[in-house]
Amino acid sequence: MRQARRRYDIDSLTDVALRVFAERGFDGASMDDVAREAGVTKAALYHHVASKDELLERGLSRALEALFAVLVEPAAQTGTPIARLRHIVRRVVELAIAVRPELTVLVRVRGNSAVERRAIARRKQFDAAVAEIVRAAQAAGECDPALDAGLFTRLTFGMCNSIVEWYRPAGALDRTAIAQAVVQLVFDGARPRLDAVPPDEYAQ
Amino acid sequence: MRQARRRYDIDSLTDVALRVFAERGFDGASMDDVAREAGVTKAALYHHVASKDELLERGLSRALEALFAVLVEPAAQTGTPIARLRHIVRRVVELAIAVRPELTVLVRVRGNSAVERRAIARRKQFDAAVAEIVRAAQAAGECDPALDAGLFTRLTFGMCNSIVEWYRPAGALDRTAIAQAVVQLVFDGARPRLDAVPPDEYAQ
Repeated sequence: MRQARRRYDIDSLTDVALRVFAERGFDGASMDDVAREAGVTKAALYHHVASKDELLERGLSRALEALFAVLVEPAAQTGTPIARLRHIVRRVVELAIAVRPELTVLVRVRGNSAVERRAIARRKQFDAAVAEIVRAAQAAGECDPALDAGLFTRLTFGMCNSIVEWYRPAGALDRTAIAQAVVQLVFDGARPRLDAVPPDEYAQ
Repeated sequence: MRQARRRYDIDSLTDVALRVFAERGFDGASMDDVAREAGVTKAALYHHVASKDELLERGLSRALEALFAVLVEPAAQTGTPIARLRHIVRRVVELAIAVRPELTVLVRVRGNSAVERRAIARRKQFDAAVAEIVRAAQAAGECDPALDAGLFTRLTFGMCNSIVEWYRPAGALDRTAIAQAVVQLVFDGARPRLDAVPPDEYAQ
């Protein structure tokens, strides 16, 4: 969708670039594509950014900052370990929807450049921080101690990440319903249970 | 990894192409890359295949055939709906590992060509067939009726698909442990439960 020519700053150009990367893949997208989508000349684009890698790095930073910000939210820092985990998983689902272009680009990073490898390393730090809370939940008897904490976080965030591939704002499912389903599945499972957590608590 | 020059047929060239596509992305990979990796000339490659799209189509067909074959396995056709679902989920995890290059390419398809759109349509048929069994499990009281069956299958297969991104044959986790963790999470959840399904049954 070509847009009307207008003044851009680095943030709005990053917005455009993320949309282009999410659509065509980072490797498949060119600076020509970004300039065309933004309605600016390539020279004007290079006035704002040094390279396609810089746009990627800015997008990945946004995604990572949003993820790490979740870990310092009050509900991620206080309460029982499993309540903290439920909060984090719910918020990661919400981010997959709220900052979908950023998360899409982060999810698809393969480590093909220094920028991508740095993002992968930070993402691993995030996962490790969450795995630590999983271990605390296991020690507290709130999570099955037989589960590998690292595997649990990979699988859970794999489920969260997959949402970027199919979520559409006009779809029948809103973000609350999706977040609730993810939290229910990974902590309570699809099988009915007598001690099920009420939906209200999922949303807390 | 450059290989010794040898005779190739269409199947082994598809193997090589899938590896190249999984590494560089389909859009980022060229027929030159495939020829180089196979150790054949581009002319020799074009003797066997008409286009990069043909290689993609062959890879996607393999992935989809493997998935649909699961649905006609005896354990997917007989028994309680939830036992059938457990079998299907376990087998999809195993496929994500056993035919990882094929599944990787299928997971990353975005609908950028007729070949990709056909694959997405067949993949949706697979998901719809599984959602049907989820509804049967709900009707039988074996799965929470409040869960949206389509959302459940998307999230569950999202978790399964994510495995292709990090699984390494030399890793600490074998495919049985991974499959068991996925089945446990989506059906029983991470929270301990009195009526937990014993690990042996996950593996049945």
